[in-house]
Amino acid sequence: MLSEEELGRVCVVLVRARNPANIGAVARAMHDFGFRGLRVVNEFAVPFEAARSAVDASAVMENAAIYASVAEAVGDCTLVVGTTAVGERDIQHRLLSLAQAGPTMRAELRRHPVANDFSLADVSGTPRVAILFGSEKTGLSNKELSHCNWLLTIPMYEHAGVRHPSMNLGQAVAVCLYELVRDSVEPVQQHEEWHSSGVDLPRTVDAGMLERMTGLLIEVMEKTEYTRRHAANSGADNVRRLVRRMGADAEDAPVWIGILRQVLWKLGQHKE
Amino acid sequence: MLSEEELGRVCVVLVRARNPANIGAVARAMHDFGFRGLRVVNEFAVPFEAARSAVDASAVMENAAIYASVAEAVGDCTLVVGTTAVGERDIQHRLLSLAQAGPTMRAELRRHPVANDFSLADVSGTPRVAILFGSEKTGLSNKELSHCNWLLTIPMYEHAGVRHPSMNLGQAVAVCLYELVRDSVEPVQQHEEWHSSGVDLPRTVDAGMLERMTGLLIEVMEKTEYTRRHAANSGADNVRRLVRRMGADAEDAPVWIGILRQVLWKLGQHKE
Repeated sequence: MLSEEELGRVCVVLVRARNPANIGAVARAMHDFGFRGLRVVNEFAVPFEAARSAVDASAVMENAAIYASVAEAVGDCTLVVGTTAVGERDIQHRLLSLAQAGPTMRAELRRHPVANDFSLADVSGTPRVAILFGSEKTGLSNKELSHCNWLLTIPMYEHAGVRHPSMNLGQAVAVCLYELVRDSVEPVQQHEEWHSSGVDLPRTVDAGMLERMTGLLIEVMEKTEYTRRHAANSGADNVRRLVRRMGADAEDAPVWIGILRQVLWKLGQHKE
Repeated sequence: MLSEEELGRVCVVLVRARNPANIGAVARAMHDFGFRGLRVVNEFAVPFEAARSAVDASAVMENAAIYASVAEAVGDCTLVVGTTAVGERDIQHRLLSLAQAGPTMRAELRRHPVANDFSLADVSGTPRVAILFGSEKTGLSNKELSHCNWLLTIPMYEHAGVRHPSMNLGQAVAVCLYELVRDSVEPVQQHEEWHSSGVDLPRTVDAGMLERMTGLLIEVMEKTEYTRRHAANSGADNVRRLVRRMGADAEDAPVWIGILRQVLWKLGQHKE
């Protein structure tokens, strides 16, 4: 899991993003995953200013900074990673898939800063990672990519006849940032009373059959007056969850259905 | 890696999505990752129709289907997974993080269909996975969630004072679908001539210092007339990549800078 401080040492650098809505969407994705360092490289101030007012993730936008060049925007970063669509152009850098890139970027963020004895004032040992995203239309130019240590690519589907896929900017940033925080799996809430095997068990019945079981069970509950006596347990939603927690497979489900039908048949017989 | 056929057995189910732009964004994310099964549960046909014309990912939109209820939309699915923000409400289902959910969903898609002897016509052994996404404002209701086998949550940052985070719909779908195809790491293009240690090596110099090295090197190349004789190697972008591929660390970089400066000093001395 990335610490508060490590999250603060990641910079999302948008190069020539022209659509204010896209900049806003990027800010929102950053906000959702806890990142704060938005940097925009743009000769035009307009889209950035428009995005400031357009977006909900106001803290990210307020701290965003505009730079005139990629060199300035990444000047204090110790690892600069460019994003690219494979096949977009001749790749002249080392290229990692996003899943490969995530651990490498996290390792850099966690690297212990090395104190140095050199008198060069601007040598900073503090690790800082920049991820560059190009314009929606053209991606990053070779010149812009030349500032990068290496490149990452999001695995996309190659549709026949399409030159190269390119993702929506906000979605691409969201996916990359997700990969960075992906290992931060906090203990997920669990209810002991449920089948421990319920999740990994291969499901061999479809939801339609489970729904039929639910309907039969409700009918049984009603006809037996269970519903009247235990109303709190008998709502359709409760029953539906109850049936799904059974984890019945292709062998069991028809058996259950058979039993429920039998019950209903018997109830009807008694009535008459 | 999910096969063409497995990709086709994943359904993205949007429940009460109201914004046509969001439906379009979802279609685009599906298109980017090769998924095709978009299902929309909505009593209003309007936003869906508007999205049809708004979006580029036309194949996904053309094959999209409208359903009147969640039950119908997931009727042929063997695994139904709901998405939720943790803390959004009392979770009454088993809850997995997205990273845990991905392998489980893939396992279901790869499960060998079980032939069955039962005469129930609608028992289908073909595995089909549905992922449900709720409306932008309210998420999925308890009733809608009750159709799910279990729930997944995308790990998000908890901002102080904010009740619960909720992602942009298109971004949430993109992140979930990325997790599904994430293991499909195809052999990524590599150039043997580069440092094999270039990526994993801790970087202890920042991009500013590398850029200073680049500038000095270019100056050296020009002053030595290398540039004139080997123009193809001497463009600023080529030199910048050249310097980054060196993988110089905090110990080496100042040494290189010292050497380059010394060269320049010497060149100046000879001239005079």
